[in-house]
Amino acid sequence: MLEQTAAVIDGKLMADEIRSEIANEVSRMKNEIGKVPGLAVVLVGERKDSQIYVRKKIAACEEVGIMSLMTELPKDCTEIEVLDAVSSYNVDPAVHGILVQLPLPQHMNEEKILNDVSLEKDVDGFHPVNMGNLAMTGRDPLFIPCTPKGCIELLLRSNVEIMGKKVVVIGRSNIAGLPTSLLLQRHHATVSVVHAFTKNPEKITREADIVISAAGVVNLVRGHWLKPGAIVIDVGTNPVEDPDSETGYTLTGDVCYEEAIKVASAITPVPGGVGPMTIAMLLSNTLDSAKRAYRFT
Amino acid sequence: MLEQTAAVIDGKLMADEIRSEIANEVSRMKNEIGKVPGLAVVLVGERKDSQIYVRKKIAACEEVGIMSLMTELPKDCTEIEVLDAVSSYNVDPAVHGILVQLPLPQHMNEEKILNDVSLEKDVDGFHPVNMGNLAMTGRDPLFIPCTPKGCIELLLRSNVEIMGKKVVVIGRSNIAGLPTSLLLQRHHATVSVVHAFTKNPEKITREADIVISAAGVVNLVRGHWLKPGAIVIDVGTNPVEDPDSETGYTLTGDVCYEEAIKVASAITPVPGGVGPMTIAMLLSNTLDSAKRAYRFT
Repeated sequence: MLEQTAAVIDGKLMADEIRSEIANEVSRMKNEIGKVPGLAVVLVGERKDSQIYVRKKIAACEEVGIMSLMTELPKDCTEIEVLDAVSSYNVDPAVHGILVQLPLPQHMNEEKILNDVSLEKDVDGFHPVNMGNLAMTGRDPLFIPCTPKGCIELLLRSNVEIMGKKVVVIGRSNIAGLPTSLLLQRHHATVSVVHAFTKNPEKITREADIVISAAGVVNLVRGHWLKPGAIVIDVGTNPVEDPDSETGYTLTGDVCYEEAIKVASAITPVPGGVGPMTIAMLLSNTLDSAKRAYRFT
Repeated sequence: MLEQTAAVIDGKLMADEIRSEIANEVSRMKNEIGKVPGLAVVLVGERKDSQIYVRKKIAACEEVGIMSLMTELPKDCTEIEVLDAVSSYNVDPAVHGILVQLPLPQHMNEEKILNDVSLEKDVDGFHPVNMGNLAMTGRDPLFIPCTPKGCIELLLRSNVEIMGKKVVVIGRSNIAGLPTSLLLQRHHATVSVVHAFTKNPEKITREADIVISAAGVVNLVRGHWLKPGAIVIDVGTNPVEDPDSETGYTLTGDVCYEEAIKVASAITPVPGGVGPMTIAMLLSNTLDSAKRAYRFT
Protein backbone atom coordinates (compact mmCIF):
# COMPACT_ATOMS: atom_id res chain seq x y z
CA MET A 1 0.00 0.00 0.00
CA LEU A 2 1.27 3.43 -0.90
CA GLU A 3 1.76 5.83 1.94
CA GLN A 4 -0.09 9.07 1.39
CA THR A 5 2.13 12.11 1.54
CA ALA A 6 1.33 15.79 1.81
CA ALA A 7 1.35 18.12 -1.13
CA VAL A 8 4.47 20.26 -0.98
CA ILE A 9 3.69 23.96 -1.27
CA ASP A 10 6.36 25.40 -3.52
CA GLY A 11 7.09 28.80 -2.02
CA LYS A 12 9.89 29.43 -4.46
CA LEU A 13 7.63 28.99 -7.46
CA MET A 14 4.95 31.24 -5.97
CA ALA A 15 7.54 33.84 -5.05
CA ASP A 16 8.86 33.75 -8.62
CA GLU A 17 5.36 34.44 -9.90
CA ILE A 18 4.95 37.35 -7.51
CA ARG A 19 8.37 38.73 -8.40
CA SER A 20 7.47 38.61 -12.04
CA GLU A 21 4.22 40.49 -11.31
CA ILE A 22 6.24 43.06 -9.37
CA ALA A 23 8.83 43.39 -12.17
CA ASN A 24 5.98 44.17 -14.58
CA GLU A 25 4.59 46.84 -12.27
CA VAL A 26 8.01 48.40 -11.73
CA SER A 27 8.60 48.55 -15.43
CA ARG A 28 5.17 50.10 -16.02
CA MET A 29 5.98 52.71 -13.36
CA LYS A 30 9.31 53.47 -14.98
CA ASN A 31 7.69 53.86 -18.41
CA GLU A 32 4.77 55.97 -17.26
CA ILE A 33 6.35 58.31 -14.70
CA GLY A 34 10.08 57.73 -15.06
CA LYS A 35 10.48 56.54 -11.46
CA VAL A 36 11.32 53.24 -9.77
CA PRO A 37 10.81 52.11 -6.16
CA GLY A 38 13.83 52.35 -3.88
CA LEU A 39 14.79 50.20 -0.90
CA ALA A 40 17.46 51.17 1.62
CA VAL A 41 19.05 48.56 3.83
CA VAL A 42 20.93 49.27 7.03
CA LEU A 43 23.22 46.44 8.09
CA VAL A 44 25.12 46.68 11.36
CA GLY A 45 27.85 44.21 12.20
CA GLU A 46 29.27 41.22 10.41
CA ARG A 47 26.84 38.41 11.23
CA LYS A 48 27.08 35.84 8.47
CA ASP A 49 23.37 35.05 8.39
CA SER A 50 22.43 38.72 8.27
CA GLN A 51 24.88 39.32 5.43
CA ILE A 52 23.37 36.44 3.49
CA TYR A 53 19.81 37.67 4.03
CA VAL A 54 20.70 41.21 3.01
CA ARG A 55 22.50 39.98 -0.09
CA LYS A 56 19.44 37.97 -1.08
CA LYS A 57 17.14 40.95 -0.58
CA ILE A 58 19.32 43.23 -2.65
CA ALA A 59 19.66 40.66 -5.42
CA ALA A 60 15.87 40.31 -5.42
CA CYS A 61 15.50 44.09 -5.75
CA GLU A 62 17.86 44.17 -8.71
CA GLU A 63 16.02 41.37 -10.40
CA VAL A 64 12.69 43.20 -10.37
CA GLY A 65 14.10 46.66 -11.09
CA ILE A 66 13.83 48.12 -7.58
CA MET A 67 16.73 50.47 -6.83
CA SER A 68 18.61 49.48 -3.69
CA LEU A 69 20.91 51.35 -1.37
CA MET A 70 22.88 49.97 1.52
CA THR A 71 24.60 51.35 4.57
CA GLU A 72 27.00 48.94 6.25
CA LEU A 73 28.20 49.86 9.71
CA PRO A 74 30.69 48.02 11.92
CA LYS A 75 29.46 46.10 14.95
CA ASP A 76 30.99 48.64 17.32
CA CYS A 77 29.46 51.72 15.72
CA THR A 78 27.30 54.01 17.82
CA GLU A 79 23.53 54.11 17.94
CA ILE A 80 23.74 57.67 16.62
CA GLU A 81 25.42 56.43 13.45
CA VAL A 82 22.56 53.99 12.84
CA LEU A 83 19.98 56.67 13.59
CA ASP A 84 21.77 59.03 11.19
CA ALA A 85 21.61 56.47 8.42
CA VAL A 86 17.90 55.95 9.06
CA SER A 87 17.26 59.71 9.16
CA SER A 88 18.96 60.38 5.87
CA TYR A 89 16.90 57.62 4.21
CA ASN A 90 13.76 59.01 5.86
CA VAL A 91 14.16 62.27 3.92
CA ASP A 92 15.47 60.77 0.68
CA PRO A 93 12.59 60.96 -1.82
CA ALA A 94 14.10 58.14 -3.92
CA VAL A 95 13.83 55.75 -0.96
CA HIS A 96 10.39 54.22 -0.35
CA GLY A 97 11.34 51.45 2.00
CA ILE A 98 13.87 51.30 4.84
CA LEU A 99 14.94 48.00 6.31
CA VAL A 100 17.08 47.75 9.41
CA GLN A 101 18.40 44.20 9.39
CA LEU A 102 17.79 42.50 12.73
CA PRO A 103 19.18 41.52 15.14
CA LEU A 104 21.11 44.67 15.98
CA PRO A 105 24.18 44.44 18.21
CA GLN A 106 23.20 44.11 21.87
CA HIS A 107 24.39 47.56 22.91
CA MET A 108 21.79 49.20 20.68
CA ASN A 109 18.23 50.14 21.51
CA GLU A 110 16.36 48.26 18.81
CA GLU A 111 13.03 49.82 19.80
CA LYS A 112 14.36 53.36 19.45
CA ILE A 113 15.95 52.68 16.08
CA LEU A 114 12.90 50.92 14.61
CA ASN A 115 10.58 53.66 15.90
CA ASP A 116 12.75 56.16 14.05
CA VAL A 117 12.00 54.65 10.65
CA SER A 118 9.45 56.86 8.93
CA LEU A 119 6.00 55.24 9.12
CA GLU A 120 5.60 55.75 5.37
CA LYS A 121 8.80 53.78 4.69
CA ASP A 122 8.42 51.04 7.33
CA VAL A 123 8.28 48.20 4.77
CA ASP A 124 9.08 45.69 7.49
CA GLY A 125 5.92 46.79 9.32
CA PHE A 126 7.68 46.73 12.69
CA HIS A 127 6.74 50.25 13.81
CA PRO A 128 4.32 50.09 16.78
CA VAL A 129 1.77 52.20 14.87
CA ASN A 130 1.77 49.63 12.05
CA MET A 131 1.58 46.81 14.59
CA GLY A 132 -1.25 48.50 16.51
CA ASN A 133 -3.20 49.09 13.31
CA LEU A 134 -2.59 45.48 12.29
CA ALA A 135 -4.07 44.36 15.60
CA MET A 136 -7.12 46.60 15.60
CA THR A 137 -10.34 45.96 13.70
CA GLY A 138 -11.27 48.69 11.27
CA ARG A 139 -7.74 50.07 11.04
CA ASP A 140 -5.35 49.52 8.18
CA PRO A 141 -1.62 49.30 8.71
CA LEU A 142 0.43 50.97 5.99
CA PHE A 143 2.55 47.82 5.82
CA ILE A 144 2.02 44.23 6.90
CA PRO A 145 5.22 42.52 8.09
CA CYS A 146 6.74 40.42 5.33
CA THR A 147 6.84 36.97 6.92
CA PRO A 148 3.17 36.94 8.04
CA LYS A 149 2.11 38.42 4.72
CA GLY A 150 4.11 35.70 2.95
CA CYS A 151 2.45 32.96 5.02
CA ILE A 152 -1.03 34.23 4.20
CA GLU A 153 -0.14 34.55 0.50
CA LEU A 154 1.08 30.95 0.55
CA LEU A 155 -2.26 29.84 1.95
CA LEU A 156 -4.36 31.97 -0.36
CA ARG A 157 -2.44 30.97 -3.47
CA SER A 158 -2.82 27.32 -2.40
CA ASN A 159 -6.60 27.90 -2.24
CA VAL A 160 -6.70 27.25 1.50
CA GLU A 161 -9.67 28.94 3.12
CA ILE A 162 -8.69 30.77 6.30
CA MET A 163 -11.99 32.18 7.56
CA GLY A 164 -13.37 30.12 10.43
CA LYS A 165 -10.42 27.73 10.40
CA LYS A 166 -8.68 26.73 13.60
CA VAL A 167 -5.13 27.95 13.32
CA VAL A 168 -2.36 27.35 15.81
CA VAL A 169 0.59 29.73 15.63
CA ILE A 170 3.66 28.38 17.42
CA GLY A 171 5.89 31.18 18.65
CA ARG A 172 5.13 34.82 19.38
CA SER A 173 8.14 36.82 18.24
CA ASN A 174 7.58 40.42 17.21
CA ILE A 175 8.74 39.72 13.68
CA ALA A 176 6.96 36.45 12.95
CA GLY A 177 4.61 34.74 15.42
CA LEU A 178 2.87 37.79 16.83
CA PRO A 179 2.06 39.60 13.58
CA THR A 180 1.10 36.29 11.97
CA SER A 181 -1.49 35.66 14.67
CA LEU A 182 -2.82 39.22 14.26
CA LEU A 183 -3.01 38.90 10.48
CA LEU A 184 -4.77 35.53 10.68
CA GLN A 185 -7.34 37.11 12.93
CA ARG A 186 -7.96 39.80 10.34
CA HIS A 187 -8.72 36.92 7.98
CA HIS A 188 -11.24 35.63 10.55
CA ALA A 189 -9.36 32.50 11.59
CA THR A 190 -9.81 31.20 15.12
CA VAL A 191 -6.29 31.63 16.40
CA SER A 192 -4.49 30.01 19.32
CA VAL A 193 -0.94 31.02 20.12
CA VAL A 194 1.38 28.37 21.52
CA HIS A 195 4.65 29.37 23.17
CA ALA A 196 7.30 28.24 25.62
CA PHE A 197 4.93 28.43 28.59
CA THR A 198 2.15 26.44 26.93
CA LYS A 199 1.31 23.17 28.60
CA ASN A 200 0.74 20.24 26.22
CA PRO A 201 1.48 22.23 23.06
CA GLU A 202 1.10 19.04 21.01
CA LYS A 203 -2.49 18.61 22.21
CA ILE A 204 -3.51 22.12 21.15
CA THR A 205 -1.62 21.87 17.89
CA ARG A 206 -3.30 18.59 17.05
CA GLU A 207 -6.67 20.37 16.96
CA ALA A 208 -5.58 22.84 14.29
CA ASP A 209 -6.68 22.85 10.67
CA ILE A 210 -3.65 25.00 9.89
CA VAL A 211 -0.38 25.02 11.85
CA ILE A 212 2.08 27.86 11.43
CA SER A 213 5.31 27.25 13.27
CA ALA A 214 7.61 30.18 13.96
CA ALA A 215 9.31 28.97 17.11
CA GLY A 216 12.88 28.74 15.91
CA VAL A 217 13.33 25.24 17.33
CA VAL A 218 14.57 22.42 15.10
CA ASN A 219 12.23 19.41 14.88
CA LEU A 220 9.81 20.88 17.42
CA VAL A 221 6.67 19.91 15.54
CA ARG A 222 6.54 16.14 15.26
CA GLY A 223 4.14 14.04 13.24
CA HIS A 224 1.94 13.25 16.25
CA TRP A 225 1.48 16.99 16.86
CA LEU A 226 -0.60 17.20 13.69
CA LYS A 227 -4.18 16.40 12.92
CA PRO A 228 -4.36 14.17 9.82
CA GLY A 229 -4.95 16.44 6.86
CA ALA A 230 -3.67 19.59 8.57
CA ILE A 231 -1.90 22.25 6.54
CA VAL A 232 1.57 23.05 7.83
CA ILE A 233 3.49 26.27 7.24
CA ASP A 234 7.03 26.10 8.55
CA VAL A 235 8.46 29.56 9.23
CA GLY A 236 11.53 28.22 11.04
CA THR A 237 14.92 28.88 9.49
CA ASN A 238 17.28 27.35 11.98
CA PRO A 239 20.91 27.07 11.02
CA VAL A 240 22.14 23.54 11.67
CA GLU A 241 25.85 22.78 11.40
CA ASP A 242 26.71 21.01 8.19
CA PRO A 243 30.37 20.55 7.26
CA ASP A 244 29.37 19.54 3.71
CA SER A 245 27.73 22.90 3.08
CA GLU A 246 29.58 25.87 1.61
CA THR A 247 28.45 28.11 4.46
CA GLY A 248 29.13 25.50 7.16
CA TYR A 249 25.43 25.10 7.94
CA THR A 250 22.09 24.28 6.38
CA LEU A 251 18.76 25.89 7.18
CA THR A 252 16.26 23.62 8.88
CA GLY A 253 12.65 24.32 9.80
CA ASP A 254 10.70 23.84 13.03
CA VAL A 255 8.79 20.91 11.64
CA CYS A 256 10.02 17.33 11.49
CA TYR A 257 9.42 17.16 7.77
CA GLU A 258 9.73 13.40 7.25
CA GLU A 259 7.08 12.75 9.89
CA ALA A 260 4.80 15.66 9.03
CA ILE A 261 4.64 14.85 5.35
CA LYS A 262 2.93 11.56 6.25
CA VAL A 263 0.20 13.27 8.30
CA ALA A 264 -0.40 16.69 6.78
CA SER A 265 -2.34 17.37 3.59
CA ALA A 266 0.02 20.17 2.54
CA ILE A 267 3.32 21.46 3.85
CA THR A 268 5.95 24.08 3.06
CA PRO A 269 9.56 22.90 2.81
CA VAL A 270 12.57 24.62 4.35
CA PRO A 271 14.26 26.06 2.41
CA GLY A 272 11.95 26.94 -0.46
CA GLY A 273 8.75 27.66 1.48
CA VAL A 274 8.19 30.79 3.54
CA GLY A 275 11.68 32.22 2.95
CA PRO A 276 11.31 33.20 -0.72
CA MET A 277 7.79 34.50 -0.01
CA THR A 278 9.12 36.77 2.74
CA ILE A 279 11.53 38.38 0.29
CA ALA A 280 8.79 38.69 -2.34
CA MET A 281 6.59 40.49 0.21
CA LEU A 282 9.40 42.92 0.97
CA LEU A 283 9.51 43.79 -2.71
CA SER A 284 5.73 44.05 -2.76
CA ASN A 285 5.70 46.40 0.24
CA THR A 286 8.39 48.55 -1.34
CA LEU A 287 6.45 48.74 -4.60
CA ASP A 288 3.25 49.66 -2.72
CA SER A 289 5.11 52.35 -0.83
CA ALA A 290 6.49 53.87 -4.03
CA LYS A 291 3.05 53.78 -5.63
CA ARG A 292 1.67 55.61 -2.60
CA ALA A 293 4.47 58.19 -2.67
CA TYR A 294 4.00 58.91 -6.38
CA ARG A 295 0.22 58.45 -6.30
CA PHE A 296 0.73 55.92 -9.05
CA THR A 297 -2.07 53.42 -9.58
CA MET B 1 -26.79 16.59 48.25
CA LEU B 2 -25.68 20.16 48.07
CA GLU B 3 -24.93 21.50 44.64
CA GLN B 4 -21.52 23.04 44.43
CA THR B 5 -21.52 26.63 43.26
CA ALA B 6 -18.75 28.88 42.05
CA ALA B 7 -17.09 31.49 44.22
CA VAL B 8 -18.37 34.90 43.22
CA ILE B 9 -15.54 37.32 42.53
CA ASP B 10 -16.60 40.62 44.03
CA GLY B 11 -15.33 43.22 41.59
CA LYS B 12 -16.97 46.02 43.48
CA LEU B 13 -15.13 45.19 46.69
CA MET B 14 -11.80 44.88 44.88
CA ALA B 15 -12.40 48.13 43.05
CA ASP B 16 -13.18 49.83 46.36
CA GLU B 17 -9.85 48.65 47.72
CA ILE B 18 -8.03 49.94 44.66
CA ARG B 19 -9.87 53.26 44.80
CA SER B 20 -8.88 53.66 48.39
CA GLU B 21 -5.22 52.96 47.49
CA ILE B 22 -5.51 55.56 44.73
CA ALA B 23 -7.12 58.10 47.07
CA ASN B 24 -4.15 57.70 49.42
CA GLU B 25 -1.69 58.25 46.61
CA VAL B 26 -3.56 61.31 45.33
CA SER B 27 -3.60 62.79 48.79
CA ARG B 28 0.14 62.10 49.23
CA MET B 29 0.77 63.82 45.88
CA LYS B 30 -1.31 66.80 46.91
CA ASN B 31 0.54 67.09 50.22
CA GLU B 32 4.02 66.65 48.81
CA ILE B 33 3.89 68.64 45.57
CA GLY B 34 0.58 70.51 45.72
CA LYS B 35 -0.78 68.85 42.57
CA VAL B 36 -3.55 66.38 41.81
CA PRO B 37 -4.14 64.23 38.73
CA GLY B 38 -6.64 65.56 36.21
CA LEU B 39 -8.95 63.66 33.86
CA ALA B 40 -10.76 65.28 30.93
CA VAL B 41 -13.78 63.61 29.40
CA VAL B 42 -15.17 64.40 25.97
CA LEU B 43 -18.78 63.30 25.54
CA VAL B 44 -20.47 63.70 22.17
CA GLY B 45 -24.21 63.20 21.80
CA GLU B 46 -26.96 62.26 24.21
CA ARG B 47 -26.71 58.47 24.44
CA LYS B 48 -28.19 57.43 27.78
CA ASP B 49 -25.65 54.67 28.42
CA SER B 50 -22.71 56.94 27.59
CA GLN B 51 -24.06 59.61 29.91
CA ILE B 52 -24.36 57.07 32.71
CA TYR B 53 -20.82 55.75 32.18
CA VAL B 54 -19.37 59.25 32.08
CA ARG B 55 -21.26 60.26 35.21
CA LYS B 56 -19.88 57.19 37.00
CA LYS B 57 -16.33 57.95 35.90
CA ILE B 58 -16.54 61.56 37.05
CA ALA B 59 -18.06 60.57 40.39
CA ALA B 60 -15.23 58.07 40.85
CA CYS B 61 -12.67 60.81 40.14
CA GLU B 62 -14.23 63.08 42.73
CA GLU B 63 -14.25 60.33 45.31
CA VAL B 64 -10.50 59.75 45.06
CA GLY B 65 -9.54 63.41 44.66
CA ILE B 66 -8.79 63.38 40.92
CA MET B 67 -9.79 66.65 39.27
CA SER B 68 -12.18 66.14 36.38
CA LEU B 69 -13.14 68.29 33.44
CA MET B 70 -15.80 67.60 30.87
CA THR B 71 -16.67 68.82 27.41
CA GLU B 72 -20.15 67.94 26.23
CA LEU B 73 -20.90 68.38 22.57
CA PRO B 74 -24.19 67.85 20.74
CA LYS B 75 -24.63 64.83 18.48
CA ASP B 76 -24.58 66.99 15.35
CA CYS B 77 -21.39 68.86 16.19
CA THR B 78 -18.51 68.74 13.73
CA GLU B 79 -15.44 66.55 13.97
CA ILE B 80 -13.39 69.74 14.20
CA GLU B 81 -15.16 70.68 17.42
CA VAL B 82 -14.25 67.32 18.95
CA LEU B 83 -10.66 67.61 17.72
CA ASP B 84 -10.49 71.13 19.19
CA ALA B 85 -11.61 69.86 22.58
CA VAL B 86 -8.99 67.09 22.45
CA SER B 87 -6.28 69.53 21.37
CA SER B 88 -6.95 71.95 24.18
CA TYR B 89 -6.75 69.12 26.72
CA ASN B 90 -3.58 67.86 25.05
CA VAL B 91 -1.80 71.10 25.95
CA ASP B 92 -3.42 71.64 29.36
CA PRO B 93 -0.76 70.76 31.96
CA ALA B 94 -3.44 70.10 34.61
CA VAL B 95 -4.90 67.32 32.47
CA HIS B 96 -3.11 63.95 32.62
CA GLY B 97 -5.74 61.78 31.06
CA ILE B 98 -8.11 62.36 28.15
CA LEU B 99 -11.04 60.08 27.58
CA VAL B 100 -13.20 60.31 24.49
CA GLN B 101 -16.35 58.40 25.37
CA LEU B 102 -17.18 55.83 22.72
CA PRO B 103 -19.11 55.24 20.56
CA LEU B 104 -18.88 58.53 18.70
CA PRO B 105 -21.68 59.55 16.33
CA GLN B 106 -21.45 57.70 13.02
CA HIS B 107 -20.47 60.74 10.95
CA MET B 108 -17.21 61.06 12.87
CA ASN B 109 -13.88 59.43 12.16
CA GLU B 110 -13.22 57.65 15.42
CA GLU B 111 -9.72 56.60 14.35
CA LYS B 112 -8.69 60.17 13.57
CA ILE B 113 -10.03 61.52 16.84
CA LEU B 114 -8.47 58.79 19.00
CA ASN B 115 -5.13 59.14 17.21
CA ASP B 116 -5.22 62.83 18.10
CA VAL B 117 -5.18 62.18 21.84
CA SER B 118 -1.67 62.83 23.11
CA LEU B 119 0.11 59.53 23.69
CA GLU B 120 1.09 60.70 27.18
CA LYS B 121 -2.57 61.28 28.08
CA ASP B 122 -4.13 58.26 26.35
CA VAL B 123 -5.45 56.74 29.60
CA ASP B 124 -7.84 54.55 27.62
CA GLY B 125 -4.83 53.01 25.86
CA PHE B 126 -6.59 53.06 22.49
CA HIS B 127 -3.86 54.86 20.53
CA PRO B 128 -2.28 52.49 17.97
CA VAL B 129 1.17 53.12 19.45
CA ASN B 130 -0.08 51.94 22.84
CA MET B 131 -1.84 49.00 21.23
CA GLY B 132 1.25 48.09 19.18
CA ASN B 133 3.45 48.26 22.24
CA LEU B 134 0.94 46.17 24.18
CA ALA B 135 1.15 43.54 21.46
CA MET B 136 4.93 43.43 21.13
CA THR B 137 7.30 41.55 23.41
CA GLY B 138 9.89 43.75 25.07
CA ARG B 139 7.88 46.94 24.58
CA ASP B 140 5.93 48.74 27.24
CA PRO B 141 2.75 50.62 26.45
CA LEU B 142 2.35 53.86 28.41
CA PHE B 143 -1.18 52.76 29.24
CA ILE B 144 -2.98 49.44 29.26
CA PRO B 145 -6.66 49.69 28.28
CA CYS B 146 -8.87 49.77 31.37
CA THR B 147 -11.14 46.78 30.80
CA PRO B 148 -8.32 44.28 30.08
CA LYS B 149 -6.29 45.70 32.94
CA GLY B 150 -9.33 45.30 35.19
CA CYS B 151 -9.80 41.67 34.12
CA ILE B 152 -6.20 40.81 34.90
CA GLU B 153 -6.36 42.59 38.26
CA LEU B 154 -9.47 40.57 39.09
CA LEU B 155 -7.59 37.38 38.36
CA LEU B 156 -4.42 38.39 40.16
CA ARG B 157 -6.26 39.61 43.25
CA SER B 158 -8.21 36.33 43.28
CA ASN B 159 -4.86 34.49 43.30
CA VAL B 160 -5.50 32.91 39.93
CA GLU B 161 -2.29 31.98 38.18
CA ILE B 162 -2.29 33.08 34.53
CA MET B 163 1.06 31.84 33.26
CA GLY B 164 0.69 28.67 31.20
CA LYS B 165 -3.08 28.61 31.62
CA LYS B 166 -5.36 28.00 28.67
CA VAL B 167 -7.46 31.10 28.27
CA VAL B 168 -10.27 31.60 25.81
CA VAL B 169 -11.23 35.19 25.05
CA ILE B 170 -14.64 35.48 23.42
CA GLY B 171 -14.90 38.59 21.26
CA ARG B 172 -12.20 40.70 19.63
CA SER B 173 -13.33 44.31 19.89
CA ASN B 174 -10.67 46.98 19.93
CA ILE B 175 -11.68 48.12 23.40
CA ALA B 176 -12.11 44.78 25.18
CA GLY B 177 -11.47 41.42 23.50
CA LEU B 178 -8.40 42.32 21.46
CA PRO B 179 -6.38 44.11 24.14
CA THR B 180 -7.42 41.47 26.69
CA SER B 181 -5.97 38.73 24.51
CA LEU B 182 -2.77 40.74 24.05
CA LEU B 183 -2.43 41.44 27.76
CA LEU B 184 -3.03 37.79 28.67
CA GLN B 185 -0.26 36.86 26.32
CA ARG B 186 2.07 39.24 28.12
CA HIS B 187 1.20 37.24 31.23
CA HIS B 188 2.22 34.08 29.36
CA ALA B 189 -1.23 32.53 29.06
CA THR B 190 -1.95 30.28 26.09
CA VAL B 191 -4.65 32.35 24.43
CA SER B 192 -7.32 31.37 21.91
CA VAL B 193 -9.65 34.01 20.54
CA VAL B 194 -13.21 32.99 19.71
CA HIS B 195 -15.39 35.22 17.55
CA ALA B 196 -18.42 35.25 15.28
CA PHE B 197 -16.69 33.17 12.59
CA THR B 198 -15.48 30.48 15.00
CA LYS B 199 -16.89 27.05 14.40
CA ASN B 200 -17.95 25.16 17.54
CA PRO B 201 -17.05 27.98 19.94
CA GLU B 202 -18.45 25.90 22.81
CA LYS B 203 -15.94 23.13 22.11
CA ILE B 204 -12.94 25.46 22.24
CA THR B 205 -14.30 27.30 25.25
CA ARG B 206 -14.80 24.04 27.12
CA GLU B 207 -11.05 23.43 27.04
CA ALA B 208 -10.21 26.69 28.80
CA ASP B 209 -9.00 27.05 32.36
CA ILE B 210 -10.07 30.70 32.23
CA VAL B 211 -12.86 32.10 30.05
CA ILE B 212 -13.13 35.83 29.44
CA SER B 213 -16.24 36.76 27.55
CA ALA B 214 -16.43 40.15 25.87
CA ALA B 215 -18.78 39.37 23.03
CA GLY B 216 -21.69 41.62 23.93
CA VAL B 217 -24.24 38.84 23.49
CA VAL B 218 -26.68 38.05 26.28
CA ASN B 219 -26.54 34.46 27.54
CA LEU B 220 -24.00 33.44 24.92
CA VAL B 221 -21.88 31.36 27.28
CA ARG B 222 -23.98 28.50 28.60
CA GLY B 223 -23.10 26.07 31.33
CA HIS B 224 -22.08 23.34 28.89
CA TRP B 225 -19.56 25.73 27.31
CA LEU B 226 -17.47 25.52 30.47
CA LYS B 227 -15.00 23.02 31.76
CA PRO B 228 -15.86 22.08 35.35
CA GLY B 229 -13.79 24.28 37.61
CA ALA B 230 -13.13 26.95 35.00
CA ILE B 231 -12.79 30.58 36.03
CA VAL B 232 -15.21 32.87 34.26
CA ILE B 233 -14.79 36.61 33.76
CA ASP B 234 -17.86 38.21 32.23
CA VAL B 235 -17.03 41.49 30.49
CA GLY B 236 -20.45 41.77 28.84
CA THR B 237 -22.63 44.72 29.82
CA ASN B 238 -25.66 44.26 27.65
CA PRO B 239 -28.65 46.46 28.31
CA VAL B 240 -31.78 44.33 28.55
CA GLU B 241 -35.18 46.02 28.69
CA ASP B 242 -36.61 46.09 32.17
CA PRO B 243 -39.72 48.16 32.84
CA ASP B 244 -39.16 47.79 36.60
CA SER B 245 -35.81 49.54 36.42
CA GLU B 246 -35.40 53.29 36.83
CA THR B 247 -33.45 53.52 33.58
CA GLY B 248 -35.78 51.21 31.68
CA TYR B 249 -33.14 48.50 31.39
CA THR B 250 -30.80 46.34 33.41
CA LEU B 251 -27.26 45.36 32.51
CA THR B 252 -26.74 41.70 31.75
CA GLY B 253 -23.52 39.84 31.01
CA ASP B 254 -22.54 37.44 28.22
CA VAL B 255 -22.62 34.46 30.54
CA CYS B 256 -25.71 32.52 31.57
CA TYR B 257 -24.98 33.06 35.24
CA GLU B 258 -27.39 30.53 36.73
CA GLU B 259 -25.91 27.76 34.64
CA ALA B 260 -22.29 28.85 34.85
CA ILE B 261 -22.28 29.14 38.62
CA LYS B 262 -22.92 25.39 38.82
CA VAL B 263 -19.93 24.51 36.64
CA ALA B 264 -17.29 27.18 37.20
CA SER B 265 -15.04 27.42 40.24
CA ALA B 266 -15.18 31.23 40.26
CA ILE B 267 -17.17 33.80 38.34
CA THR B 268 -17.67 37.54 38.14
CA PRO B 269 -21.22 38.86 38.36
CA VAL B 270 -22.76 41.52 36.14
CA PRO B 271 -23.11 44.15 37.46
CA GLY B 272 -20.46 44.22 40.16
CA GLY B 273 -17.66 42.37 38.41
CA VAL B 274 -15.54 43.84 35.62
CA GLY B 275 -17.44 47.15 35.47
CA PRO B 276 -16.21 48.68 38.74
CA MET B 277 -12.69 47.39 38.01
CA THR B 278 -12.68 49.13 34.64
CA ILE B 279 -13.42 52.45 36.30
CA ALA B 280 -10.81 51.80 38.99
CA MET B 281 -8.22 51.15 36.26
CA LEU B 282 -9.11 54.45 34.58
CA LEU B 283 -8.33 56.19 37.87
CA SER B 284 -5.14 54.17 38.19
CA ASN B 285 -4.02 55.09 34.67
CA THR B 286 -4.77 58.76 35.34
CA LEU B 287 -2.78 58.67 38.56
CA ASP B 288 0.14 56.94 36.82
CA SER B 289 0.06 59.56 34.10
CA ALA B 290 0.16 62.42 36.59
CA LYS B 291 3.02 60.75 38.47
CA ARG B 292 4.91 60.48 35.20
CA ALA B 293 4.19 64.11 34.28
CA TYR B 294 5.35 65.41 37.69
CA ARG B 295 8.11 62.80 38.07
CA PHE B 296 6.47 61.94 41.37
CA THR B 297 7.28 58.56 42.83
